[in-house]
Amino acid sequence: MSVFESESVNVLVVGANRGIGLGFVQNLLQGDRIGRVYATYRNLASAELTTLQEQYPQRLGLISIDITNESQIAQGIAQIQHQVDKLHLVLYCVGFLHEGSIQPEKSLQQIHAEHLLRYFQVNSIGAVLIAKHVLPLLKHGDRNVFACISAKVGSIGDNHLGGWYGYRASKAALNMFVRTTAIEYSRKSPRTLVVVLHPGTTDTRLSQPFQRSVRPDKLFSVERSVTQLLKVIEALQPDDSGQFFSWDGSRLPW
Amino acid sequence: MSVFESESVNVLVVGANRGIGLGFVQNLLQGDRIGRVYATYRNLASAELTTLQEQYPQRLGLISIDITNESQIAQGIAQIQHQVDKLHLVLYCVGFLHEGSIQPEKSLQQIHAEHLLRYFQVNSIGAVLIAKHVLPLLKHGDRNVFACISAKVGSIGDNHLGGWYGYRASKAALNMFVRTTAIEYSRKSPRTLVVVLHPGTTDTRLSQPFQRSVRPDKLFSVERSVTQLLKVIEALQPDDSGQFFSWDGSRLPW
Repeated sequence: MSVFESESVNVLVVGANRGIGLGFVQNLLQGDRIGRVYATYRNLASAELTTLQEQYPQRLGLISIDITNESQIAQGIAQIQHQVDKLHLVLYCVGFLHEGSIQPEKSLQQIHAEHLLRYFQVNSIGAVLIAKHVLPLLKHGDRNVFACISAKVGSIGDNHLGGWYGYRASKAALNMFVRTTAIEYSRKSPRTLVVVLHPGTTDTRLSQPFQRSVRPDKLFSVERSVTQLLKVIEALQPDDSGQFFSWDGSRLPW
Repeated sequence: MSVFESESVNVLVVGANRGIGLGFVQNLLQGDRIGRVYATYRNLASAELTTLQEQYPQRLGLISIDITNESQIAQGIAQIQHQVDKLHLVLYCVGFLHEGSIQPEKSLQQIHAEHLLRYFQVNSIGAVLIAKHVLPLLKHGDRNVFACISAKVGSIGDNHLGGWYGYRASKAALNMFVRTTAIEYSRKSPRTLVVVLHPGTTDTRLSQPFQRSVRPDKLFSVERSVTQLLKVIEALQPDDSGQFFSWDGSRLPW
């Protein structure tokens, strides 16, 4: 039995321009249980997202949100509220590991405070701002899910290799934000399950420079990652809120 | 047997103007095993720190460092390097819960992105910048310790109450930074043990607005907290590097 009890499911995918976020949008539009899909992008919608929009003009809504700008988040959510009164699934897929001159640090010597702040702003703070603004669309009677893409390298207890200071700490901070959100939502929107998910290494721009060290059977296509994560989401139980799950449904340590 | 094997121990206390940092300086200057103590303050040294400096002019060095300014950190550490070639204990005691208009958030509605960034900048990033710059003073033959004051509310797994989004996430990020530093130090400075410490609720300005809800026997004086934490530090074993300890020496979950 699926976590989603309602006939028609509305979804918001934050950070849908490419990678796993785009993969979710593609996958979800293929199913006929999904009503509306809202996909956010920063600055300019990608060719893939634009093509999908032409293919599904009635079901896909594109929304421009720079996650570092709270008023854009508020405006974007208000746009959705004009069209639907319920969301059943919110997926936070924004996140970066490298961006322009920012590369994951191999050592303390490579640490720059401004880069660390950028990691926190995009990978951690954006998610909790979405949680702040999306709450009214989740406080309805149907079971629903707010899931954020985190990473196993964001597990403090599982960290045995070191390096990647900013990315690791931003994902640990995301995990704490999500855990804290789960507690607040359990009081204000008890039908919402709030979780963090580890997708495994997925063949996206994010992992591209680091794929050489990944065993081929451990490097997932976007379609495979998305299918696996949706299976984990569908199987969520009420007790699972506030927890950290891997792509195979196993629990990860904080 | 103490973790410190050398005859004379040099200490750096970062954030020593008041609270637990000041308490460490006061305690350490009373012992005669301690050689030099370096105490950092932001902007203006407190009356307490200035008085100590007059009392121990040969042993206490005051250094002005704003932890959000990396060049001040580099200059401050360089000042120490002019005077000693080894540190045996580095204590990161900088941290805030409330500051001016920034108050710990009771709910998502009270979240502000700029406040969250400030929490990360002071409570998390400062520590890893110190770790970056202090390494040359720790790469010597004697056993030494780099310890950061974290908080049990920064434990993700232990979070059952919610709230305090920014403070909690900044301490989780600090824990990840420290864990990652422990791994790098284990290769570059294998005699350094790197840990995070939970002092318990201590009677300082930080906890002052929240002391009503603390049982009197659970509210420690600064002297008591500092004594307890130094006992934990003295008892550290090589395997303890990269771990999170409470004031009573017990391990805390991430």
